[in-house]
Amino acid sequence: MISSPTVDFAPPGIADIEQAAERIQGQAVLTPLLESPALNRIVGGRVLVKPEVLQRTGSFKFRGAYNCISRISASARKAGVVAFSSGNHAQGVAAAAKMLGAPATIVMPSDAPAIKVESTRAWGAEIVLYDRAKEDRDAIARGIARKQGASVVPPFDHPHVIAGQGTIGLEIARQLAALGATADAVVVPCGGGGLIAGTSLALKHALPGVPVYAAEPQGYDDTTRSLRSGHREQARAGAKSFCDALLAPMPGELTFSINRRTLAGGYAVSDAEVAGAMATAFVHLKLVIEPGGAVALAAVLTGKLDARARTVVVVCTGGNVDPGVFAAALSFS
Amino acid sequence: MISSPTVDFAPPGIADIEQAAERIQGQAVLTPLLESPALNRIVGGRVLVKPEVLQRTGSFKFRGAYNCISRISASARKAGVVAFSSGNHAQGVAAAAKMLGAPATIVMPSDAPAIKVESTRAWGAEIVLYDRAKEDRDAIARGIARKQGASVVPPFDHPHVIAGQGTIGLEIARQLAALGATADAVVVPCGGGGLIAGTSLALKHALPGVPVYAAEPQGYDDTTRSLRSGHREQARAGAKSFCDALLAPMPGELTFSINRRTLAGGYAVSDAEVAGAMATAFVHLKLVIEPGGAVALAAVLTGKLDARARTVVVVCTGGNVDPGVFAAALSFS
Repeated sequence: MISSPTVDFAPPGIADIEQAAERIQGQAVLTPLLESPALNRIVGGRVLVKPEVLQRTGSFKFRGAYNCISRISASARKAGVVAFSSGNHAQGVAAAAKMLGAPATIVMPSDAPAIKVESTRAWGAEIVLYDRAKEDRDAIARGIARKQGASVVPPFDHPHVIAGQGTIGLEIARQLAALGATADAVVVPCGGGGLIAGTSLALKHALPGVPVYAAEPQGYDDTTRSLRSGHREQARAGAKSFCDALLAPMPGELTFSINRRTLAGGYAVSDAEVAGAMATAFVHLKLVIEPGGAVALAAVLTGKLDARARTVVVVCTGGNVDPGVFAAALSFS
Repeated sequence: MISSPTVDFAPPGIADIEQAAERIQGQAVLTPLLESPALNRIVGGRVLVKPEVLQRTGSFKFRGAYNCISRISASARKAGVVAFSSGNHAQGVAAAAKMLGAPATIVMPSDAPAIKVESTRAWGAEIVLYDRAKEDRDAIARGIARKQGASVVPPFDHPHVIAGQGTIGLEIARQLAALGATADAVVVPCGGGGLIAGTSLALKHALPGVPVYAAEPQGYDDTTRSLRSGHREQARAGAKSFCDALLAPMPGELTFSINRRTLAGGYAVSDAEVAGAMATAFVHLKLVIEPGGAVALAAVLTGKLDARARTVVVVCTGGNVDPGVFAAALSFS
């Protein structure tokens, strides 16, 4: 059984990420690295987009979930897996569990986007809803795990999850080489910090010297502030954001132990800036990007991360957004 | 100067398409072949999507335009190029002309989607608007060409344009091979028929025996009906469709001389069915597809082309759609 994150976990190394890449090969989509001349013109530099919206289940989360569940023994898999998630991790775990023959139970907040709840159910997972304000999702998931003997698949703070997400870093390095391009910066959406921890570890190895930045919603810029203070800061009390995928209350213990060494800094963007980035992606990239998936693009489009005369890789992490939210964002174009 | 299509033009052969592939390499985006397990589940078969929405300028039209303009002599290019188009060919020509050093004038209908007019202008082209109901765009373009000594780049009925679009067929064949997959059918949106002519020529060579079908808007199903009758039929009088990219009044002379030999048939879909396909692509593919770009997907989703227990390649041709139209289509999900 994969237990909850503790300080006993060692961070994954490059070998773990390379093994994860082998495990997910043929199961995960090898997402392309896209470029839009119009977008380049807007920022006055070169923007290369890693569109994880095209990933299986519509977000990068499938990578870590598949890597994690594939490392559970076949007999333990039969007892099932449990995860808590606002939606993208839920779908990633549900899909990976189904492909690997494990029954899945997913604990989701009752205010999760309908599209995420429906898609998770469509993968055959059992859904348990909870009240985000009053209940402890962690405790609920752990209770289910105890009762069923199931394994918890944590959303970010686990070496197998981090290694799975880190495959994005390996792909970026290879795809840049195939383009004959070098990056001046890489910017990655950051919630609990699992994706950026794995990605930055891979990039430190493959492209040492290229700075990696976190992008976060204003108020939930806990990693950005933690990088400045040197210890784990909480999200601002009462903060609100429509970036539902990025509302982790603080950086993970394991993820921050990595990110404090690997990241060059972070940027916070407002909901309006994120909506503008979603609209720009609609017009120029033809991609559906959800709010949390568009924060890195927003950091570049606002000039907070200055891309002028530089080459910047932007990870767009997910596209699971309800039609009404998406339609409203388009008015920001 | 590239003159207007006449019966003197010989259809392109596979060598022309292979040469076009060399010319556009590194200029056009090699679009991936995408798959969505959720979409597969919906149709009960395997759907492989060729997303030309990710192409430079947001549609496949760049391929033919670039191939065509690159074959104009450097001296003639200086006198410029002229094209008439509701928008996607306009942007393709504007972008290719800019990249190849030719000034471009584009004749566009005054009711073309704003996003297409703006994007064409952003590529530095001069725009001349005309009234779709009262004026002859062909005559306007030809008048400009005469006055300026510029070359007309026809939207579909020209061997260099057809060869450029045909590169999609070569890519599909290679990408299927890379997946270890074989296709039972390929379905392609059809307006004047240039894309499907080039694509079906390439596929006849690379994958002989795989049937290629046209998808068209109801009322503008002129190619489908022409295939049945054996001669070029007109679009239905007074037909209306929001598939602005597919409103050619009848099949091209050259394109139909190819398509009558290469195509297995066609399917007509309603605007509501197209909107449903756009919404499904939003939910499961995370792609922005314009109405005309979604007709082939609609043919599969409606079951008109039966994909059950089969592998079907669906070309999604463009993503240049105004936000309001897209938002309205999402309500069909």
